[in-house]
Amino acid sequence: MAKTLIFGHKNPDTDTICSALAYADLKTKTSTEVEPARLGTVSKETQYALDHFGVDSPKLIEKVEDGADVILVDHNEFQQSAENIGNARIIEVIDHHRISNFETREPLYFRAEPVGCTATIINKMYKEKGIAVSKEVAGLLLSAIISDSLLLKSPTCTDEDVDAAHELAELAEVNLETYGLKMLQAGADLSDKTVTDLITMDAKEFSMGEAKVEIAQVNAVDTSDIYKLQDELISEVTERVSANELDLFLFVATDILNNDSEVLAIGKGTGKVESGFGVTLDGNNRALLKGVVSRKKQIVTVLTDEFLK
Amino acid sequence: MAKTLIFGHKNPDTDTICSALAYADLKTKTSTEVEPARLGTVSKETQYALDHFGVDSPKLIEKVEDGADVILVDHNEFQQSAENIGNARIIEVIDHHRISNFETREPLYFRAEPVGCTATIINKMYKEKGIAVSKEVAGLLLSAIISDSLLLKSPTCTDEDVDAAHELAELAEVNLETYGLKMLQAGADLSDKTVTDLITMDAKEFSMGEAKVEIAQVNAVDTSDIYKLQDELISEVTERVSANELDLFLFVATDILNNDSEVLAIGKGTGKVESGFGVTLDGNNRALLKGVVSRKKQIVTVLTDEFLK
Repeated sequence: MAKTLIFGHKNPDTDTICSALAYADLKTKTSTEVEPARLGTVSKETQYALDHFGVDSPKLIEKVEDGADVILVDHNEFQQSAENIGNARIIEVIDHHRISNFETREPLYFRAEPVGCTATIINKMYKEKGIAVSKEVAGLLLSAIISDSLLLKSPTCTDEDVDAAHELAELAEVNLETYGLKMLQAGADLSDKTVTDLITMDAKEFSMGEAKVEIAQVNAVDTSDIYKLQDELISEVTERVSANELDLFLFVATDILNNDSEVLAIGKGTGKVESGFGVTLDGNNRALLKGVVSRKKQIVTVLTDEFLK
Repeated sequence: MAKTLIFGHKNPDTDTICSALAYADLKTKTSTEVEPARLGTVSKETQYALDHFGVDSPKLIEKVEDGADVILVDHNEFQQSAENIGNARIIEVIDHHRISNFETREPLYFRAEPVGCTATIINKMYKEKGIAVSKEVAGLLLSAIISDSLLLKSPTCTDEDVDAAHELAELAEVNLETYGLKMLQAGADLSDKTVTDLITMDAKEFSMGEAKVEIAQVNAVDTSDIYKLQDELISEVTERVSANELDLFLFVATDILNNDSEVLAIGKGTGKVESGFGVTLDGNNRALLKGVVSRKKQIVTVLTDEFLK
């Protein structure tokens, strides 16, 4: 029988990759051997973390077999998961997102907690099971927390995440601030990215009422660098909205030093961005969202409310 | 601000009532005061347990207010929950069922485990939080496990449920077998039930692919007693199928001594019962399902597979 696969969402971020690797380590040490996997390219930020702690990236898969046993980490919405996920047998989910477009035919182990990062939950599970976290796994879990919390600055970051980060930094033998900033900067290096990369590398699709909304986010040290490509961005996003019948595509460039986001909105739902955030899009469909860094807590919730009105 | 309400599913069974009461006790002892509630009449079985341990039944509610904080136990599917649940703020779910027709706008604490009873999970949570289970709460949790596992005989019953039951029987100061059989027999006393009672007292609706299926279950010491009312049953169920536009209504009379079920199926989906269980319905649309006692594990899964074919 094939090993149970553990994987996170499409367009993998550091939490998705590192949580899959760490949870595979924990499962293998406590119950059955499982195999970590990924649904897309490893980002520069994640690669920095993997290189720093000498861990190989998990294997790339695109779809899962009918009836295969799988464990999902860091997501539950089917449209963010592997192709064919509806025909797999999901035996566990470890996540920290809202629950939506998810269903199973049988009972399962589903653990979601409203914390900033899946890795924080997995760190807790190591303790519950009395298994020591190795230096490498501590590094992976720490990197995931730094990534999802923008170095503990995102409003999604809870006390549990902060405590876990400090504890894990010690086990991983790194300085939290120094390591964290280097990792984020590695990810914010967008110099070799095409416009297509920018709008797909961390894009997630959401159902909001009847509306189909895609939100792509990139971190940058200087968002004006990204918007040098504004005309190309508008043209590619417009094509994507039409090809995928989207009601809204929101491109979010997040300034990791100032903790604001400069967004570009395209689609018939752009009014929802204006009403939800109390901003006016400029002639290029752009607006600055002051203090907004979290897609999950500051963008998805606001837009879902708007689309359900 | 109104207290957070904790409740289980409509047509409450013993697990739903006792888990709401027990989890309210645990939440109140560990974080915030919360109030247990119920969405329907307390069954004789549950009343036997409440009387034995001297606990009042939780308050009856029908709907929840817009934006109210709620905690769900023993269910997650919205059609089994309070009216208006889609507009409440679900902050926690503790459950042991499949996940379906459930969604939230924000992250939450969601804990589902594939065990036989929600009470088994709550018993574990007392331990995790280092809170002692009182004699009364032990009695409630035990009663829930006995009910959902048909005195540990259902295929849904796991080792965890068995261990919890023995441990809780000791804390509750009762003999597991003697107390359990008396409680089940109290519930199987159907002498005062009308046909309407029989088909609604423990009925749950399920979405299976495109199909709308309702499954009602009653426990009995002798199922032939129930089928003395066969003609009335057929007539009322037929009306209900038509009124609620159901594809299938399955009435399940479970023999608690022999652990079989005698079912009655009405609706255009009756063929799914025949193909799913390899039986032929007789002239009265009835069939004996040998060894079938669990709606969740032995009926819903089989029918869902059939409707998705």
